Amino acid sequence: MGSIDSTRKPTIRDVAAVAGVSYGTVSRVINGGHWVSPEARTAVEDAIRSTGYTANHAARSLATGRSNSLAFLLTEPQHLLFSDPTFALLLRGATEALASRSMTLVLLIADGAKEQHEIERYVRAGHVDGVLLVSSHESDSLLASLVAAGVPTVCTGIPLGRGSSVPNVSVDEAESARMMTRYLLDQGHRRIGVITGPDDTPGGRFRLVGFRDEMGDLFDPDLVEQVRYEAVEGEAAMTRLLERAADIDAVFAASDVIAVGAIAALRKAGKSVPGDVAVAGFDDSGLAATHDPPLTTVRQPWSQISHEMVDMLLDVINGRSPEPVVLPTSLVVRETA
Amino acid sequence: MGSIDSTRKPTIRDVAAVAGVSYGTVSRVINGGHWVSPEARTAVEDAIRSTGYTANHAARSLATGRSNSLAFLLTEPQHLLFSDPTFALLLRGATEALASRSMTLVLLIADGAKEQHEIERYVRAGHVDGVLLVSSHESDSLLASLVAAGVPTVCTGIPLGRGSSVPNVSVDEAESARMMTRYLLDQGHRRIGVITGPDDTPGGRFRLVGFRDEMGDLFDPDLVEQVRYEAVEGEAAMTRLLERAADIDAVFAASDVIAVGAIAALRKAGKSVPGDVAVAGFDDSGLAATHDPPLTTVRQPWSQISHEMVDMLLDVINGRSPEPVVLPTSLVVRETA
Repeated sequence: MGSIDSTRKPTIRDVAAVAGVSYGTVSRVINGGHWVSPEARTAVEDAIRSTGYTANHAARSLATGRSNSLAFLLTEPQHLLFSDPTFALLLRGATEALASRSMTLVLLIADGAKEQHEIERYVRAGHVDGVLLVSSHESDSLLASLVAAGVPTVCTGIPLGRGSSVPNVSVDEAESARMMTRYLLDQGHRRIGVITGPDDTPGGRFRLVGFRDEMGDLFDPDLVEQVRYEAVEGEAAMTRLLERAADIDAVFAASDVIAVGAIAALRKAGKSVPGDVAVAGFDDSGLAATHDPPLTTVRQPWSQISHEMVDMLLDVINGRSPEPVVLPTSLVVRETA
Repeated sequence: MGSIDSTRKPTIRDVAAVAGVSYGTVSRVINGGHWVSPEARTAVEDAIRSTGYTANHAARSLATGRSNSLAFLLTEPQHLLFSDPTFALLLRGATEALASRSMTLVLLIADGAKEQHEIERYVRAGHVDGVLLVSSHESDSLLASLVAAGVPTVCTGIPLGRGSSVPNVSVDEAESARMMTRYLLDQGHRRIGVITGPDDTPGGRFRLVGFRDEMGDLFDPDLVEQVRYEAVEGEAAMTRLLERAADIDAVFAASDVIAVGAIAALRKAGKSVPGDVAVAGFDDSGLAATHDPPLTTVRQPWSQISHEMVDMLLDVINGRSPEPVVLPTSLVVRETA
C-alpha cells in the first residue's frame, strides 16, 4: 500500500496505490466504471474514500466537453411523479447508481409539448451528457428528436413506434402477465377481467397480450378495460366491469395504482376482496405492501432497472451500442388474490 | 394588428404587431418579464401563441452565456420529496411560473454532502442560471458556497446563519403561530402542547417563538417537543407528550405531516380528536384537506411563494438586489381543532 503525504491533495496515483490497482483501472472507474471487475471497482471506491481524492471536474469537463451529469427525464404529467410510486423507486435507483461515479442526476419533467420543446433545447445544448427517458408513450416525439439530435438516450421499457432501436431496459411484459394470469386460473377463477394501461405504452399493450394468451378460450372481450395508470381510472374501470359482468370473480390490473382504484370500486359495490373478487396488481411499487389489504402483484426489479439503465447510458455516451436488457419479474402473493 | 406572412418564421416584431406593443416590451417579456404591466404581458403571451413565435434560444444562449434554466434545489433527503406534499406544491408553482418564460426547470436533490458537492460543481459550471433553494437548514454549507461563488440564489424562508442576507420569500412564521395559538386558546384549551420542527430551520425556530409568546403564563416547557418534519417523528413526539402530561388538551404541530403522526399516536392511546385532544397543523399542504378527519391548519400561499421566488431570482440574475418578501398566511378551520 502506498504512503500518502497528508499535506498535498491526493491524486489518482495515490488512489491506485491504496487500491492496489493500475492508474488506468482507477481512471476507468472514475469515468464510468466500464471494463472493471466488481472487486476492482469496490477497491477503488474504498480507496477514493480513504484518500479523500476528488477529481478535478472543471478540468475534466473542459477536456471532455462533458457536463458529468445525466438527466432523469419523465415524460408524464408532473403530478404522476408524486402519485405513482414507481417513479420514486426508479429515481432512487438512478441516484444510487450515480452516487459512486461523481456525476449529478438532473430531474427534468416534460409535462406537455411546450416543456418538451424547452427540455429538448436544454439537453441539446449539452447541459447533460445523456438522458434516462422514463415512461415514454409511443406518441412522444421527444424520443425521436433526441435520437435524431445524437443525444445519448436510454429508455425504460421497449420503445414503441419510431424510436424502437433505442437502447432500453425492460421486463418481459407478456410473460409477466401470463405468470399472474396462470396464478389466478390456478386459484380457481374463470371470469377474470383485466384493466390494462394505455395501448401506446409497452406495459399497456404487452400485459394485455400475455393475459389474452394465457386465458385462451376463457378470454372474454367484455372483461377488458384500458385506462391510464391512475387510481381514479382504475376505480371507474372496475365499476364498468361490474356493470357489464356481475359474475366477474377476479381482476388483473396493469399497475398497483390501478388495482387500488379497483378495490375502492369493489368496496363501494359491497364486494369483498378477495372473497367475492380477487384483485392482482403489477409493479410491487411499495404501495402494494402498505395497502390495506396488501396487494398480490408482479414485482419489477426497480433498483436493477435503474442501475442497468445508468450502466447502459454510460456505454452509449462512451460510443458503444449496448444490446437491450430484459430483466425477470416475480410473483408476490399477499392478500388480495 | 400586423399581417404575418405564413411562409417565414414569425419574429419578435410580428409578436409586437399582433400584441399591439413595442419591440422592447416583447423582448422584456421573453427575457424574464420585468418592467411589464400584467396586461401587456398577457397580450404578448397571447401573441406568442397565436403567431407560433419561438425564440432562437441557442443564439440567445451564445449571446448571453445563459442556459435559460433555473434549478429547483432541494436540500433534503430524497424520500421527503415524495412524503412531504409541500415540496410538490412548491415545484408545481415554480413550473407554472416558468411556463410563460421559455425557461427550463431543473430539479436537483442534494441528499448528503457528496451530492451537495456534485451539485455545487454542476451549478457553478453554468448549467443553470440561478438556484431556487428549497428548505435550507442553517447547517447547510451549500447556500454559503453558492453565494460565495456568485451563483444567483433565492431561498424559501428567512435563511439562518451565514447566508442571512440572501434574497428570500417567507411567511411570518411567528405571527402565523400566534394566530393558531390564539385560536386554540379561544376554543377554551389551556394545556396546549407544541411539536415544532428542527431549530436550524426558520419554521422550527420561529413557530415556537410565536407559540410561546401567545401562551404567555400558560406556556409549559414540559409541553414542547422538537422533531424533524416527518409523520413517524410526530407520532413519537405525541406519545412522549401524553406520557409527560396526561391532561394535555390541544397540540399545535409545526407541519401537517407532523400533525398526522400526532393524530395516529392519539388514536393508539384511545384519545379522540378533537374531543379529548385538539390537533392543529401548519402548511395546508393538500394532505390537510384529504386527511380523515380533515386538519385545522395554517395555510401557506404555496403558489404565490413559488411565483415570487421565480420573479425574485430573475431579478437577481439581471443584476438587481430585491428586498425579501414576507407573505401572509391564513387560518383554515376544519375538524381536528
